[in-house]
Amino acid sequence: MSEATKGVIFIGDGMGGRPVPALDGQTSLEAQATPALDAVAARGETGLMFPIAPGIPAGSDTAHMSILGFDPFEYYRGRGPFEARGVGIEVKPGDVAFRCNFSTVEGHKIIDRRAGRIKEGTDQLAAAISTNMSMIEDVQIIFKPSVEHRAALVLRGPNLSHEISEVDPHEAGVDYWRCEALEGAESPSAAIKTARIINEFVRRAHDIMDGHPVNVARRAAGELPANVALPRGAGTAVHLQAFEDRYGLNGAMIVEVDLVRGLGKYLDMDVIEVAGATGGQDTDETAIARAVVAALEDHDFVLANIKCPDLGGHDGDCKLKMEAIAKVDRAVAYLLDTLDMNKTTLAVTADHCTPCSLMDHSGDAVPIAFVGNGLRPDDVTTFGERAVSKGSLGHLRGMEVMNVLTNYMGVAHKFGA
Amino acid sequence: MSEATKGVIFIGDGMGGRPVPALDGQTSLEAQATPALDAVAARGETGLMFPIAPGIPAGSDTAHMSILGFDPFEYYRGRGPFEARGVGIEVKPGDVAFRCNFSTVEGHKIIDRRAGRIKEGTDQLAAAISTNMSMIEDVQIIFKPSVEHRAALVLRGPNLSHEISEVDPHEAGVDYWRCEALEGAESPSAAIKTARIINEFVRRAHDIMDGHPVNVARRAAGELPANVALPRGAGTAVHLQAFEDRYGLNGAMIVEVDLVRGLGKYLDMDVIEVAGATGGQDTDETAIARAVVAALEDHDFVLANIKCPDLGGHDGDCKLKMEAIAKVDRAVAYLLDTLDMNKTTLAVTADHCTPCSLMDHSGDAVPIAFVGNGLRPDDVTTFGERAVSKGSLGHLRGMEVMNVLTNYMGVAHKFGA
Repeated sequence: MSEATKGVIFIGDGMGGRPVPALDGQTSLEAQATPALDAVAARGETGLMFPIAPGIPAGSDTAHMSILGFDPFEYYRGRGPFEARGVGIEVKPGDVAFRCNFSTVEGHKIIDRRAGRIKEGTDQLAAAISTNMSMIEDVQIIFKPSVEHRAALVLRGPNLSHEISEVDPHEAGVDYWRCEALEGAESPSAAIKTARIINEFVRRAHDIMDGHPVNVARRAAGELPANVALPRGAGTAVHLQAFEDRYGLNGAMIVEVDLVRGLGKYLDMDVIEVAGATGGQDTDETAIARAVVAALEDHDFVLANIKCPDLGGHDGDCKLKMEAIAKVDRAVAYLLDTLDMNKTTLAVTADHCTPCSLMDHSGDAVPIAFVGNGLRPDDVTTFGERAVSKGSLGHLRGMEVMNVLTNYMGVAHKFGA
Repeated sequence: MSEATKGVIFIGDGMGGRPVPALDGQTSLEAQATPALDAVAARGETGLMFPIAPGIPAGSDTAHMSILGFDPFEYYRGRGPFEARGVGIEVKPGDVAFRCNFSTVEGHKIIDRRAGRIKEGTDQLAAAISTNMSMIEDVQIIFKPSVEHRAALVLRGPNLSHEISEVDPHEAGVDYWRCEALEGAESPSAAIKTARIINEFVRRAHDIMDGHPVNVARRAAGELPANVALPRGAGTAVHLQAFEDRYGLNGAMIVEVDLVRGLGKYLDMDVIEVAGATGGQDTDETAIARAVVAALEDHDFVLANIKCPDLGGHDGDCKLKMEAIAKVDRAVAYLLDTLDMNKTTLAVTADHCTPCSLMDHSGDAVPIAFVGNGLRPDDVTTFGERAVSKGSLGHLRGMEVMNVLTNYMGVAHKFGA
């Protein structure tokens, strides 16, 4: 009888793509030499995977939710709760959460969305907000700074909604926007109330911060004041079962995207920070792979993600994307060399396509390959979008990946008698 | 960055099939030379598509609903509302709608289901019904003639149901049937009431029409009187989001089936009539293709359908079906020759199989191929049922077609952040 193994899902962020004319119609992934990914394909079972469903372009948050087995159509209500959880605010079902920027304004006009890339003093500014604005109407205001100009805001109280318009116009030199209920909101009264509270939050945050000693000092030093907090990306917190409760596996996450890290914390996974994992093209992929190996010492499951293939895709730079894919390949090579593959099941895939031709996410399928102890290798030997379309797994959905993985790991529970 | 394109779904009605012994076990589609369809397959991504779900034989209405992204399991409550909308009656959610025939009866016995193929006078007969029978019980009676012997009936009022038996036996020489509530109807009281109203409608329609001057004149001229209206195909109208609201695309429909045309109107699509589109084997396929090209001038999306492959299938005549498939191919050739394929995404498919061996619809998958700007062509080069089963799209469902198409068109919205 085969023994249960540990499990790894290793994700090249946005690694899937479409044909690039400069690469003779190959995708970046097809054109780049990927001996380790090819080895996984050759030794394992392959297929294509629609992260959410055919044709649906996935975000990082919805794709990782889906791959971890939580249906985004059912559970996704905006990114805010993951952002807030990522910076350490406990969110409860029904809370409406936001990512915030400390910004500089004159009146309503945005001078700098990042308040001169403020690095210090945001603790004191946040404390001033917390002290002077613990409630608006019957809603509790929870505000917490993150690194640099970043912060998170949680509204807790009755009759709230994430179906409100944005405040942050994402550019300087224009007025920030008045928050309003979205047309067609499920609960118009909740959306109207939430929009009113957000407008009041922004107004009072400005009053509290504008003359704060931190900003007096910044102005004196010729720096831009952080004199408003602009919320964005509203999301309603829903109950998601903890990863361990769901699968009976002690799970860790080693990822380079704050938003996905927030999802990991939301699922009570151990979110492991790695020195050298920059989230950029210069990331230390071997450090990430080493961290995966280390995490497997005391975890049953690790989800890892290297961000940089997505960056080249968004930049429309297939050379950069190919270099990034080579980094993913080196990380996977380290895993294959280091892990006992009789005791590990490894899945390699992408969370979505970010075709260079599109410079954005697309709804195309991504390749997926599983290698491990005892599964049925097919005859696919390269890890490319079109090569794996002949694979024995056919077309999976993101939501099915954990079931397939736990089956190969030997830890899936029989359903039925 | 790729630009958004326009989109076309071109449907050969019932074009899929099963092996024909006389064709050495090929299907009609496999046996017929289809250079244009093959070119779409060769230049594009291919797969098989279950119009509704594996093994479910689709009707024209449910297949087109599904392909347009409206789940028939959730939204289909009979064909009546599409028929009624097709002849210009506004239907509201909750209405129960029927297609009707002007027929000739003696007592309850049907002499001619089409009242001697009556062509004139049905306006006056319908006006007499409207004047003399605006209500039955608390239910409003809306009756409107269509072409020749055809008409539509809408019941509007509280507590109605489409779960009633048919009145029209679909043959002459027998009595028409008494309408009854179907066993197991969701609301027995609504079904009993609706059946009672339909029986009363038929009785009173006969009373109103039998001695009507139109029929006095017809009898005098030796023609059969149109002395009853027989409803059939009850359906409850449900709310379907308008196509443009659903997809943000300005959509047109160019089809040869009244029922599907009614669906198009129900979805507030522009339903375009084409001179020469007969719905028969003699249809002018190039006129249809020209109309598609013209419609793309001021629409983002066109769904087109050529009916005749279905006719050969129903007749069990594979020669006729192959000729019809050649017509579909010529229309697609015109599109490929005429449209700027850098600015168009084209899907070719069928709405269901109508195998000659079955002479009816089957629940087998149909081929589908997408060609457009930037997608990942697979290595399939012919548009046959078995050839495309090796395609990179695997097995789609009808409900997924619009998502896949809008993804290729570059107009799909990212779900998540």
